[in-house]
Amino acid sequence: MDMIVVMKASAAAADIDRVVERVRELGLVAHPSKGEFRTIVGAIGQKTPEAQEQLEQLPGVDEVMAITQPYKLASREFHEADTILDIKGIRVGGPHVNIIAGPCAIESREILFGVGKAVKEAGASILRGGAYKPRTSPYSYKGMGKEGLELLQQAGQELDMPTITEVVDPRDVEIVGEYTDIFQIGARNMQNFNLLLEVGKTDKPVFIKRGLAASITDLLMSAEYVLSQGNHRVILCERGIRTFCEETRFTLDVSAVPVIQERCHLPVFIDPSHAAGKRDLVPHLALAGIAAGAAGAIVEVHSCPERALCDGPQAVLPMNFVKLMEQIRQIAEIVDHRVTLWGREDAVVRRSAGGGWAT
Amino acid sequence: MDMIVVMKASAAAADIDRVVERVRELGLVAHPSKGEFRTIVGAIGQKTPEAQEQLEQLPGVDEVMAITQPYKLASREFHEADTILDIKGIRVGGPHVNIIAGPCAIESREILFGVGKAVKEAGASILRGGAYKPRTSPYSYKGMGKEGLELLQQAGQELDMPTITEVVDPRDVEIVGEYTDIFQIGARNMQNFNLLLEVGKTDKPVFIKRGLAASITDLLMSAEYVLSQGNHRVILCERGIRTFCEETRFTLDVSAVPVIQERCHLPVFIDPSHAAGKRDLVPHLALAGIAAGAAGAIVEVHSCPERALCDGPQAVLPMNFVKLMEQIRQIAEIVDHRVTLWGREDAVVRRSAGGGWAT
Amino acid sequence: MDMIVVMKASAAAADIDRVVERVRELGLVAHPSKGEFRTIVGAIGQKTPEAQEQLEQLPGVDEVMAITQPYKLASREFHEADTILDIKGIRVGGPHVNIIAGPCAIESREILFGVGKAVKEAGASILRGGAYKPRTSPYSYKGMGKEGLELLQQAGQELDMPTITEVVDPRDVEIVGEYTDIFQIGARNMQNFNLLLEVGKTDKPVFIKRGLAASITDLLMSAEYVLSQGNHRVILCERGIRTFCEETRFTLDVSAVPVIQERCHLPVFIDPSHAAGKRDLVPHLALAGIAAGAAGAIVEVHSCPERALCDGPQAVLPMNFVKLMEQIRQIAEIVDHRVTLWGREDAVVRRSAGGGWAT
Amino acid sequence: MDMIVVMKASAAAADIDRVVERVRELGLVAHPSKGEFRTIVGAIGQKTPEAQEQLEQLPGVDEVMAITQPYKLASREFHEADTILDIKGIRVGGPHVNIIAGPCAIESREILFGVGKAVKEAGASILRGGAYKPRTSPYSYKGMGKEGLELLQQAGQELDMPTITEVVDPRDVEIVGEYTDIFQIGARNMQNFNLLLEVGKTDKPVFIKRGLAASITDLLMSAEYVLSQGNHRVILCERGIRTFCEETRFTLDVSAVPVIQERCHLPVFIDPSHAAGKRDLVPHLALAGIAAGAAGAIVEVHSCPERALCDGPQAVLPMNFVKLMEQIRQIAEIVDHRVTLWGREDAVVRRSAGGGWAT
Repeated sequence: MDMIVVMKASAAAADIDRVVERVRELGLVAHPSKGEFRTIVGAIGQKTPEAQEQLEQLPGVDEVMAITQPYKLASREFHEADTILDIKGIRVGGPHVNIIAGPCAIESREILFGVGKAVKEAGASILRGGAYKPRTSPYSYKGMGKEGLELLQQAGQELDMPTITEVVDPRDVEIVGEYTDIFQIGARNMQNFNLLLEVGKTDKPVFIKRGLAASITDLLMSAEYVLSQGNHRVILCERGIRTFCEETRFTLDVSAVPVIQERCHLPVFIDPSHAAGKRDLVPHLALAGIAAGAAGAIVEVHSCPERALCDGPQAVLPMNFVKLMEQIRQIAEIVDHRVTLWGREDAVVRRSAGGGWAT
Repeated sequence: MDMIVVMKASAAAADIDRVVERVRELGLVAHPSKGEFRTIVGAIGQKTPEAQEQLEQLPGVDEVMAITQPYKLASREFHEADTILDIKGIRVGGPHVNIIAGPCAIESREILFGVGKAVKEAGASILRGGAYKPRTSPYSYKGMGKEGLELLQQAGQELDMPTITEVVDPRDVEIVGEYTDIFQIGARNMQNFNLLLEVGKTDKPVFIKRGLAASITDLLMSAEYVLSQGNHRVILCERGIRTFCEETRFTLDVSAVPVIQERCHLPVFIDPSHAAGKRDLVPHLALAGIAAGAAGAIVEVHSCPERALCDGPQAVLPMNFVKLMEQIRQIAEIVDHRVTLWGREDAVVRRSAGGGWAT
Repeated sequence: MDMIVVMKASAAAADIDRVVERVRELGLVAHPSKGEFRTIVGAIGQKTPEAQEQLEQLPGVDEVMAITQPYKLASREFHEADTILDIKGIRVGGPHVNIIAGPCAIESREILFGVGKAVKEAGASILRGGAYKPRTSPYSYKGMGKEGLELLQQAGQELDMPTITEVVDPRDVEIVGEYTDIFQIGARNMQNFNLLLEVGKTDKPVFIKRGLAASITDLLMSAEYVLSQGNHRVILCERGIRTFCEETRFTLDVSAVPVIQERCHLPVFIDPSHAAGKRDLVPHLALAGIAAGAAGAIVEVHSCPERALCDGPQAVLPMNFVKLMEQIRQIAEIVDHRVTLWGREDAVVRRSAGGGWAT
Repeated sequence: MDMIVVMKASAAAADIDRVVERVRELGLVAHPSKGEFRTIVGAIGQKTPEAQEQLEQLPGVDEVMAITQPYKLASREFHEADTILDIKGIRVGGPHVNIIAGPCAIESREILFGVGKAVKEAGASILRGGAYKPRTSPYSYKGMGKEGLELLQQAGQELDMPTITEVVDPRDVEIVGEYTDIFQIGARNMQNFNLLLEVGKTDKPVFIKRGLAASITDLLMSAEYVLSQGNHRVILCERGIRTFCEETRFTLDVSAVPVIQERCHLPVFIDPSHAAGKRDLVPHLALAGIAAGAAGAIVEVHSCPERALCDGPQAVLPMNFVKLMEQIRQIAEIVDHRVTLWGREDAVVRRSAGGGWAT
């Protein structure tokens, strides 16, 4: 039963007949069911998005309710077990918890390599850094572009960490793909469908951030765009939605983590940095996300944030990141996850019988 | 005075000195002012977006408040009078009210020309129709593409109406520009900055819809992207924001019309169709928008909406569009606007002394 | 068919049996219907709010969808025609448009009588003024209390206008009822259910403002509280909801007007003053609301707003209110409403054949 | 410096003089400061809420920015250290983590005592149960009233647990206070100011839930109402706000926890049950809140939720609550909090050297 057409109490017999006929015309099996006051017509088969809209408009129809979700490849029905990605030996998803860290924008070799080294030592497994920055203002810093990509690749190689960077234009997918291990699709591009199709044609993992006003279904449909092109390596990320709350930059919807996990097999990360907008809040939100069951977090770290060219106020200092990683590790274990350290599965720390941590 | 740095009550003299020094280093004039409990430091000069973020992070700083708006070319300070565009002889903005109408998607020659003729006769001045449809689902109808563009161009020529169609990809700007008179940037692409830059390099008018979660400032910054490339022919459109209300598809923020008009010289339209999502609500919202002072509305009209491939439930029937146009004309006059009819300024109808309408 | 229980694809036959049994135990008729992949069970009869929650939790149940709305007395099904109230000879609802105007708070005899006279002359039919002000801050001005009520009653008598004032406490219903003609329930008390029950026991009209985060259903359920006590004289008011938009105090949800009117027979007003928060926006929003079909508006007017003790920035000056009333009258007529003037039905102005207004 | 009046660039000297004069008339010290393009006027002294509104309206004024927060007694400036309440020997706030648990509504002696015993054994320190239930529908179950209060008191005495129950009407404060140890103010009554004043006159702790659309400042102002009456025993609770997300009943704003703690000295709890609306999500949100630093959680537990008369779908089963408490204890310790067990400080469990828990 894919749709239920609820007829109005006042619907005539002819209205019901017309609905039944149209359901069949749409290639579906009609299943009318007469109640005391109303008739409902079940419609069985592979519905299209158009079918629901069209039936809604027939005379005597009160409402058309979809029973099945509009996404398929992203759903647990299609793929019941957690998807676990292998990214250069790093396992992402399932019981694994990975922390992606690095500066917001790649500003210089010195900062990128310095921060990269610090976050790796603290336990981050993937290195982030933006080369193409989408900015609200045309007058803001836009990133180093190709030169930034080169630096990121070098840092990843030197530190032996996979890298992630944002791609904002379908024309850039090829070049960005030459330098990075993971494509990041930012919140403002979550429904840039042509961009999703382009990264869907590659074989690199795609990290999709939830849009500011995107429902969970919207986010899963964006994943579906990538999956439908044959690229099954998708990671989702809750990064805060826009609400009436002004105290934080966005409102981290921490419940998105278990809600998505119930419906979808893909790993779900959180982005405490963009949600908070202020570094003092970042650890609280990061821990909340991990406690809620997230497969990881993406955290902005900067060695000199008060001179950063982008989002400095939300960047955590390396020394505070060390403490945060320690708490993340402990909480991950309590909720039956474990943290991937130093980029390799075999290096995962495990809690000894005595309660301590060892490699 | 571009920014005010508010120091904490507990800030030390050294903190204040450091702020003053940093303000100067940023190329601004510092203007400290000691109060009973707190010191504030004014910063005078051309601030950059980075400057505010960087100052916020200095020790002893409580808050940094921007006094000037981040947009320049879009602001009333820069251009005090209403911008009035001339699009193939049609005047848009200022006292002129224009109704853009047509089907959501271009589905066939027959429907497009039929609807086009009907809306022109009713008084619409610009013809709409989508050839590239951004759809939430990868399985939904995506439009006719180039063939649709050709049909739209032919319809515009035959009906002597300027045309508008959506462009969703920076790679399509050239081809779409060959066929259409106005570029439409959809809500989901409002912050597709590279797309904005591309249409900004053309000389065709750009119609930008407000994003689902975009603030007024965000929308004006997107206009600024286009303006900053030298294309000054921009029209803005309020089309509903995402709120907790489930009764309509989106919530039409009708107050956006006067709010934008106070700050910005560009024409502001409303889109009652996408906001409502249901055709019965469309006239109510269209009239509300015109009464609030909008420079026009973009309305979806379809001759057979229950078979439409896209957004049928919100399409108004041609016969109801006639009545709607009549009410729009009357309301526009009450709020000191007038409706551009049949695509030509010299054909504007005027109210006779007796109260009737004549051409 | 009051509810539809959608079973999971994986539900066992025993699960379905248990649902059928429980539906019957709840006093409803069960109507199972087996599809290709799923079974649905219709439940027919007078459902209780508890029944839906309880069925949702049974094993094998995916979702329970309510078909009928939870409100009865407020619905169009119960009472198809528009409710038209007679308040001291003033007709409210149906084709009648009434403007309620006056100062936010009653501050002095002089201001109240002066403003009252001005708004009556301009065409307002009901006088507003707050004696008990609910304020966010315990340190804000709280109103004149009983003395204010006395002044309001005197002003109403002298100007021959019905009056409206807010009641905030169930303990005050009796005393407020002695002085006012209409009870106002503010947005923050829309779900103060005991207060609703108390005013429901009186025979005075109750003007209920929609809460900042209330759905349309929530608002109609609050009306249902009053109606269920036997008081059928209820007026609803959209006054702005809380969204991410910061440019206005609240976001006027103008589509609430037609949405409520479709479902409910009670008159729907709008409050442009509290939505806007700034006087320059008030006329735009007032006209938008009337154009959308509202049965009236409640507008704050003050002769010296820069010295008002409450909400001065949103108060319209009397001279601007005159112009606003003229535009309201014209727009009301275009949308087939007419404005009640000077408090009496027989004084309604009508458009002469020549297009002008006369009494 | 309590307010900054920002003059427009176009303001005349006379406008500035008038602002300075009015600031002085309001009992504040004026401090004008002339910049290159604009003048700003600082206003020093105890401002009133009215003063800001009145200054905003003077000619030539662009904006008035408040520097100081409108709450005083609730602020960290007034009371720097965490407030720690002693409720019958239970410490609430500071490093202590308390779990309040019990059924949503008190439905019978058997269920209340059974659930109470189970949650106490699992580690809850305070017993909850509703006797007066505010319900959206007038047709929903409203609670047992006074009989429920008696049962709650008996259960508290027998189990040696302090109790909490909701009060919804200022007229009920006296009777509810005779039976309960803590007053709960529900989300819908957060701005029922007269109710806040009444509980403020008692000496019992007041547990205030954040309203569905309340800002953090709104919530702290509601606390201020209670504090201003001399009752300093206030606990705050984040319970989910209303957003566009439909997947959960409300959106738990987990960042509210650290944001409030930075500004305010009162304990902050979270309510995962009402935020989630579904029991499967409750543990995820509870753990997220504790990880974010909350001083506790209020969790609905029911032994037979599918027959509960209120909010059954969100009630956790006693056996799942045991596992949840174990995880809460471990996470609380990681974020430097400890869980109060069995209602007594001296019974707090501590982690032994070996990693286990002991009393």
